Amino acid sequence: MTTAIVTLTTDFGLLDEYVGALKGVLLSHLASLTVIDISHAIPPQDILHGSMILAHSVPFFPQGTVHLAVVDPGVGSRRRIVAIRAGGQLLVGPDNGLFTPFLRNETTQVHHVTNDALFRSPVSPTFHGRDIMAPVAAQLAGGMDMSLVGQRVPRESCVQLSRYTSRRIGDSIVGQVVARDHFGNLRTNITENEVRHLSGAEGISLRAGELQIDGLNSAYAERQSGELIALVDSQGFVEIAAVDGDAAALTGIGTGCEIIITRRRPGF
Amino acid sequence: MTTAIVTLTTDFGLLDEYVGALKGVLLSHLASLTVIDISHAIPPQDILHGSMILAHSVPFFPQGTVHLAVVDPGVGSRRRIVAIRAGGQLLVGPDNGLFTPFLRNETTQVHHVTNDALFRSPVSPTFHGRDIMAPVAAQLAGGMDMSLVGQRVPRESCVQLSRYTSRRIGDSIVGQVVARDHFGNLRTNITENEVRHLSGAEGISLRAGELQIDGLNSAYAERQSGELIALVDSQGFVEIAAVDGDAAALTGIGTGCEIIITRRRPGF
Amino acid sequence: MTTAIVTLTTDFGLLDEYVGALKGVLLSHLASLTVIDISHAIPPQDILHGSMILAHSVPFFPQGTVHLAVVDPGVGSRRRIVAIRAGGQLLVGPDNGLFTPFLRNETTQVHHVTNDALFRSPVSPTFHGRDIMAPVAAQLAGGMDMSLVGQRVPRESCVQLSRYTSRRIGDSIVGQVVARDHFGNLRTNITENEVRHLSGAEGISLRAGELQIDGLNSAYAERQSGELIALVDSQGFVEIAAVDGDAAALTGIGTGCEIIITRRRPGF
Repeated sequence: MTTAIVTLTTDFGLLDEYVGALKGVLLSHLASLTVIDISHAIPPQDILHGSMILAHSVPFFPQGTVHLAVVDPGVGSRRRIVAIRAGGQLLVGPDNGLFTPFLRNETTQVHHVTNDALFRSPVSPTFHGRDIMAPVAAQLAGGMDMSLVGQRVPRESCVQLSRYTSRRIGDSIVGQVVARDHFGNLRTNITENEVRHLSGAEGISLRAGELQIDGLNSAYAERQSGELIALVDSQGFVEIAAVDGDAAALTGIGTGCEIIITRRRPGF
Repeated sequence: MTTAIVTLTTDFGLLDEYVGALKGVLLSHLASLTVIDISHAIPPQDILHGSMILAHSVPFFPQGTVHLAVVDPGVGSRRRIVAIRAGGQLLVGPDNGLFTPFLRNETTQVHHVTNDALFRSPVSPTFHGRDIMAPVAAQLAGGMDMSLVGQRVPRESCVQLSRYTSRRIGDSIVGQVVARDHFGNLRTNITENEVRHLSGAEGISLRAGELQIDGLNSAYAERQSGELIALVDSQGFVEIAAVDGDAAALTGIGTGCEIIITRRRPGF
Repeated sequence: MTTAIVTLTTDFGLLDEYVGALKGVLLSHLASLTVIDISHAIPPQDILHGSMILAHSVPFFPQGTVHLAVVDPGVGSRRRIVAIRAGGQLLVGPDNGLFTPFLRNETTQVHHVTNDALFRSPVSPTFHGRDIMAPVAAQLAGGMDMSLVGQRVPRESCVQLSRYTSRRIGDSIVGQVVARDHFGNLRTNITENEVRHLSGAEGISLRAGELQIDGLNSAYAERQSGELIALVDSQGFVEIAAVDGDAAALTGIGTGCEIIITRRRPGF
């Protein structure tokens, strides 16, 4: 028998009963379920932040895991609820951009969740996570075929966040800071691959406002304590970090700040 | 075989080892236990807040789940520890008002936890959660009969919080803000049923200090961004919310603020 | 069949995907694993704090539990990764002092984790928790013999924190505040045993800066609300607490403050 796993990623915080109610509903459907917290600390209604956490944690779970994701400022409006199969992982949540990273792949399948026989009744207009998404997630984890949640819809019909990738402009890559992590590292939407393609063996310069950093490091420990460095994070993205320190506090740079990476030229 | 589930609701925070010690004791009694975090972020010693989280999450769990709740400012004093069976759910914790929402029902059974053969030994005078409540909870989850924890006591002998319900005064309902949730919504102790009984089809006015809101909405998405609205939350209680915003920050209203709901009269 | 349990203690916080990635890797190795959060709120890179949480929670778990601990400022440097067997518990993490409390016992065994056949590939230079420690922890929980992770090394070769214990100086015990807990209690590195040895039946005085407290209480409830007291915590250490209050806020005392305990003399 395989283990059924449901992960939770929400902006609910832990001050209220919302997380407990979700877990209760999940276990009421399937008491043997393994319920795993990914995070309940997504900044309220920050869809981009939620999508990044999903992008960087979902692929590590075993095939067939169901990921219930609730960052849902549009609850009660006409935004759709979707169930997605992507790379062997299943995802359930609002169609509001939260699943952007999973919509790029041609093999991704999307179903519009409409079969109210699967829902709790009555459905609260302010808590679809508890009354629609959790019951659907638990039943998918229990082996229900995804076609039962509702009709398949084109992947292209789903909401995608535009701010998700960087652009190549001439000899530069222009991206932005997409998150400040718990350690104060500034995470960008620029990948190591883009940078390697740009610079070859010559090295690069990164600019963010008045800050300039030369070169790309591969580990914190290569440089002196307190030094600001650019390095490739564990997901393959460029980040700005302070060795043993808090880069966000040291630089004053925050989410949304433009990042420009250029080839370093001798003499400049 | 049924799955044994124990949930945890505490004011321990996550900075210290208290939560880890509880989980260790639970699993040492029954390694196959499913341990579920409801919340460890109850504001320190805030019994009312803890009781609300329990009220709104416990009923969603499968029958037979054991809920270990530790908000226990009187640890080491003569306050009792109780085990409760209410609506198919089991609860273990201090008799200090935390279980108020479960004591109203005539079928609720209460036992005074006194059988020290079930406890860890020695019992620390400052951590009954670890040394008394967790062992009892684990053993109840494992199928032990509740009568073994100690003598049954009258439901009416338990401590109840007085601040738990609103009052009808003439043509008004007078209640209060009982919590500010993670999103800044202001939750009250006034139920939708009370309001519907008051107003019939005429609509209502809600006042909180200088704030006045007319009408009761059913979803955030019905109104404009930033607007302050009164709506029925996912538990059937009236709450004050700001569409896409933080009502607590916008209004300055906090826990304890009096709420008066009256029938709206034409011309006034 | 025994249940395989892995606990997690990190300084990752819950804002990012790091915790989710760890859990995904663990479950990908062994989907039936019970994954238990001890804490992800260790202050960033605070090895002492992490070691204290481990010391006070690990011993409560069932024998054979694997404890994955990641407070790892030296990630990417040449600090070692170790697997430890201590008192029936297994621990996996960096050799940077985090495991100090477990290195004192002569029966503790330490292995240097070097067998890269067990790791994820490629290994990110900034996230050994995900790519080395989690796979090793999962495989140990699944029953792999510890000798397979790498060569056994002398216990004495491991990094230990010097700040871990108090000293006896003449008629005094000199220690320090090692943590402020969630309730504002000030925890010290002085044990009840040391104090009992010092004072016999005469009672003691505790000084911390200008603060003086006479006597050692055994429970909060013995004294008046707001009063500052010294008491023995649930782990056998002396702490400074304010009854129903926040001792850290009331006294201004923080981590690192020197604590001196002397025998109380009549007339002084």
